[in-house]
Amino acid sequence: MASQQPLDLPTPSSCTAGTGSASVSKEVAEVQRLFKQSGVKYSMHSAGTTIEGSWDECMRIIGQCHSLLHANGVVRIQSDIRVGSRTDKKQSFQDKVKAVNDLLAQDGR
Amino acid sequence: MASQQPLDLPTPSSCTAGTGSASVSKEVAEVQRLFKQSGVKYSMHSAGTTIEGSWDECMRIIGQCHSLLHANGVVRIQSDIRVGSRTDKKQSFQDKVKAVNDLLAQDGR
Amino acid sequence: MASQQPLDLPTPSSCTAGTGSASVSKEVAEVQRLFKQSGVKYSMHSAGTTIEGSWDECMRIIGQCHSLLHANGVVRIQSDIRVGSRTDKKQSFQDKVKAVNDLLAQDGR
Amino acid sequence: MASQQPLDLPTPSSCTAGTGSASVSKEVAEVQRLFKQSGVKYSMHSAGTTIEGSWDECMRIIGQCHSLLHANGVVRIQSDIRVGSRTDKKQSFQDKVKAVNDLLAQDGR
Repeated sequence: MASQQPLDLPTPSSCTAGTGSASVSKEVAEVQRLFKQSGVKYSMHSAGTTIEGSWDECMRIIGQCHSLLHANGVVRIQSDIRVGSRTDKKQSFQDKVKAVNDLLAQDGR
Repeated sequence: MASQQPLDLPTPSSCTAGTGSASVSKEVAEVQRLFKQSGVKYSMHSAGTTIEGSWDECMRIIGQCHSLLHANGVVRIQSDIRVGSRTDKKQSFQDKVKAVNDLLAQDGR
Repeated sequence: MASQQPLDLPTPSSCTAGTGSASVSKEVAEVQRLFKQSGVKYSMHSAGTTIEGSWDECMRIIGQCHSLLHANGVVRIQSDIRVGSRTDKKQSFQDKVKAVNDLLAQDGR
Repeated sequence: MASQQPLDLPTPSSCTAGTGSASVSKEVAEVQRLFKQSGVKYSMHSAGTTIEGSWDECMRIIGQCHSLLHANGVVRIQSDIRVGSRTDKKQSFQDKVKAVNDLLAQDGR
């Protein structure tokens, strides 16, 4: 039986680290449409969607994503939100990626 | 229709921030049994389970949790692992909670 | 040099999986005091703090934690918020832990 | 004083939800170089880096990232790993993004 000797189990032969939650394309598309309508700056990628705005705006929109999916019949929703704020300077999420890519471009490889 | 005017939606009237993933008690109990058998130091709480050990040991056991649940018929599993390592000193997860509680105890409120 | 052959590096000999963010006790204590004043239902554990309430209430308080630490001189803050909402039933975070513990109690071990 | 009336504090006027951890470009670039050398399939984006491979391979490489940064003098490191595995089908992280974009393309907007 499966649960008899779990410590002898191998770890999964494949996984995707960094991958976002539910992966149900239809639901994710619904959420993208909401982001589009909202006017917030957003970018979908392989680990979810990054959005940028005031704290209250970002959190309200994410809450509305939950409400939208609930309204569409999804009974339970779990989101993982990583949120950063800083007072030293204003840096967009594109700036952050660019800063790393600029460093890598100097590698000459 | 639900998806017509998502931006007019209220945010959910209740939520639990910090709450761990699947919340299916039976599956979570399976995972706790695996942790118990493994001999690793662990502690279940309202946001998941904290474990402590070498990197390879911790990651292998979490992978075995995935394999165990897959073996029990769960087709897709998503875990959120927050992992920390430090070189300055050795501090157990109990020490961390204690350090905060010690500070709060001085508040006299 | 350290970065020459990173692929030959061993993984860390110890880590804590599930451990919450900054771990600076003083800052964490500040946040606990804010939760206490807020009147929200909360519980600190080894992976952070779980809070329970309406979406807007929870998110506003977490945002105020950022503002509080910024006001105390912390320049950059990163939070990891796992948030769940469900429409099928109301279940507190204590109920969730209890449901698992009840199952484990039946194990007779 | 800052911590006197935290509940009167406004939430931050800007934030980036979904944004990855430390944001120190130099350290992130180091990690990207390690991923490149490793031969693992990877993709950097605004919320971190997604990698794909066997469980053990992915976790070993992430552990080596910690070790690399420790070797470069970073005393404490915290990573947030979201990891998924599934038994129903094999789907790369590009496939996942494509599945959503295909749906959105049918919107005609």
